[in-house]
Amino acid sequence: MANIKASIITIGDELLIGQTIDTNSAWIARQLNALGIDVVRRIAVGDNAPDIRKALDEEIAASDTVLITGGLGPTADDITKPLLCEYFGGKMQVDERVLEHVKEMFVRRNRPFLERNLKQAEVPDNCTVLFNRMGTAPGMLFEKNGKLIISMPGVPFEMMAIMEDGVLPLYKSRFKSDAMVHRTLITAGEGESFIAERIADIENALPPYIRLAYLPSLGMVKLRLTGRRENEEGLIGEVEAWQHKLHERLANIVVASEDISFEQILGKLLNEKGSTLALAESCTGGYISHLITQVAGASKYLKGCIVPYLVEVKENVLGVQKETLEAYGAVSEPVAREMAERVREKLNSDYSISITGILDIDKVEGETAASRTAWIAVASATETQAKEFRFNHDRIRNKESAAIMAMFMLWKFIKGRS
Amino acid sequence: MANIKASIITIGDELLIGQTIDTNSAWIARQLNALGIDVVRRIAVGDNAPDIRKALDEEIAASDTVLITGGLGPTADDITKPLLCEYFGGKMQVDERVLEHVKEMFVRRNRPFLERNLKQAEVPDNCTVLFNRMGTAPGMLFEKNGKLIISMPGVPFEMMAIMEDGVLPLYKSRFKSDAMVHRTLITAGEGESFIAERIADIENALPPYIRLAYLPSLGMVKLRLTGRRENEEGLIGEVEAWQHKLHERLANIVVASEDISFEQILGKLLNEKGSTLALAESCTGGYISHLITQVAGASKYLKGCIVPYLVEVKENVLGVQKETLEAYGAVSEPVAREMAERVREKLNSDYSISITGILDIDKVEGETAASRTAWIAVASATETQAKEFRFNHDRIRNKESAAIMAMFMLWKFIKGRS
Repeated sequence: MANIKASIITIGDELLIGQTIDTNSAWIARQLNALGIDVVRRIAVGDNAPDIRKALDEEIAASDTVLITGGLGPTADDITKPLLCEYFGGKMQVDERVLEHVKEMFVRRNRPFLERNLKQAEVPDNCTVLFNRMGTAPGMLFEKNGKLIISMPGVPFEMMAIMEDGVLPLYKSRFKSDAMVHRTLITAGEGESFIAERIADIENALPPYIRLAYLPSLGMVKLRLTGRRENEEGLIGEVEAWQHKLHERLANIVVASEDISFEQILGKLLNEKGSTLALAESCTGGYISHLITQVAGASKYLKGCIVPYLVEVKENVLGVQKETLEAYGAVSEPVAREMAERVREKLNSDYSISITGILDIDKVEGETAASRTAWIAVASATETQAKEFRFNHDRIRNKESAAIMAMFMLWKFIKGRS
Repeated sequence: MANIKASIITIGDELLIGQTIDTNSAWIARQLNALGIDVVRRIAVGDNAPDIRKALDEEIAASDTVLITGGLGPTADDITKPLLCEYFGGKMQVDERVLEHVKEMFVRRNRPFLERNLKQAEVPDNCTVLFNRMGTAPGMLFEKNGKLIISMPGVPFEMMAIMEDGVLPLYKSRFKSDAMVHRTLITAGEGESFIAERIADIENALPPYIRLAYLPSLGMVKLRLTGRRENEEGLIGEVEAWQHKLHERLANIVVASEDISFEQILGKLLNEKGSTLALAESCTGGYISHLITQVAGASKYLKGCIVPYLVEVKENVLGVQKETLEAYGAVSEPVAREMAERVREKLNSDYSISITGILDIDKVEGETAASRTAWIAVASATETQAKEFRFNHDRIRNKESAAIMAMFMLWKFIKGRS
């Protein structure tokens, strides 16, 4: 069976001048991928008619379905709706159901309905309206040469609602595509080349319908196996057998056998052990706590966090000894150890993580390289370990690296891996 | 003068299956935009030769310069380098300078140099090597029909280093483009349509070379004026005069007249007043503290944060009275007020923010709607204000909204705006 191909067109000047990062396309791609639909191209164009028309021409020719996001707001810089209407040869008319919905949303938000908002209820007479339960701009479905062209607002949660309510059910009923299976292994602590070297023979033995991809990110490399075949039978088992082979070979560096974040990996481990965690974050400013609380159910294991951003707070609130701070300085092994021990005691948790350092390279210009250090400590009731880390990038990237390193250090501490 | 047009091609299956969000393109677009170069299209394609060739054909035809990121790693799934070599009619050869650099990077990282890594030092003989000080994969510059085609690795900080060291200086010397001026106003607390209504006459009076865009985000709408003209003279002054008109009209909702984040806006205000801040974040889990510490120099005003994620920590560490917690529950006005007051006292700051609530809609399924509430309080030495907020999206989005609402509430509290 031929694969179903999809293109995503994102419309908006804000994308082309870099004011907005496109998160919609990744979300859409994941949904389509789960249905076995291939996103073959993603394209972003500005709010101008010739570029939008050209993108429509190209993508309708290249794919079975085209998803368009953006350009549907109520203000003057949004030109997409009338353009699509004309492109597909229709004319604009008020849709009564949409009008009622738009008015109701204004009542609910306790806002007067403006003449300008009437425009939002106008839709091309040659489209099928895709209801938007989260906002006032409706989605639109056009058909041309047997291809489905879908237009949605760019506001992420409105787009998601239209996809879930209208588009994905439509795709399920219209398209029948290849069977596709993804399996992931997450490794930490070793580089892409070294992993590739260790598993070269396995990679070379993969059948043509199973593909291996290396996805490196901060401190981690994800290995993704994709099996894809017309015939679904046995495919899951086969991909999982290859995943198992890779897992055995890389046992010492594998931290998860599913595609989850490091905060989820750590959360699972704490849940399995029924253990609790407390954090003392200085230079990461609460970022580790933020990541850990992104995971639903984190209140089962995270007791809380203290961010002693200034030295006085390390002493007065967290209870690090003045003598230690004076003798070794705030960025030191003894202070990291005391921070981890004190926060574990204060919050009465099984484990703790602490971090103290300087992550901002600008800040220490002209000073010795030693000041770019961060000390991370992890503690249990019976043991404390501390380690020095160096970070060489900018403030924001260093914070991300430090958070991953700190969670990984605790994970190894609990697992008894060195 | 004709505008200089650029296209960005991003290569990688991980983008098309939604495993990775493309942040590179936005960064590149901002750099090019500052030089007056228009990014007219951004396109993402998978790791396969026909799609990459097609994208090259199209974008080289459409633009003056094409920037390619991704597909240059040392493993088997990266096919871009040999493909570019062949596309531009060259052959691969080891570049001695790159080889030396790659070997040196391995020594520095204390890793053995593998045969496989030798490939990284091979480059097409028809390109100019763009040195990569941050990694082993070199950038490459090809020229065809007077157009510049640049290939860079997809790892963000490596791409950024090559752009800064090689590409941007090259663009500056090669291209002379229109003068372009952006000015932004950030508003909070009013919707896009209402703002458009209030400034319709000003928007209609804009000259054709100045354009207004509305960029709504959580709780805020950015208004971006873009002036663009061959002749630079007076353009900045003119755009700023229009910005001033809009600012006057929207004075009650403008929170900043430059394109900065809300945490920067709040940081500036605290800096101006020489005031300090402490945070007590329950349901946001340290996210506000994380945002505030993303801003360089935050240690001038942020003393620290306590995340009392569990109720026991609210009582034992933060010092909220047991009686208050028992009488009103953890998500209540009295608890929010006590949290704000206690954290301000404990951390000895001028101002404080507290938040307590349930942001996770899954968690409260079947319970009354009231439990989806968060209470936010702000305090100074003489006054405490508290307010109830409702959040209707998923956990992650609700956390973002709550953080913006909390920072905005303190901003208004300090400014004396209601």
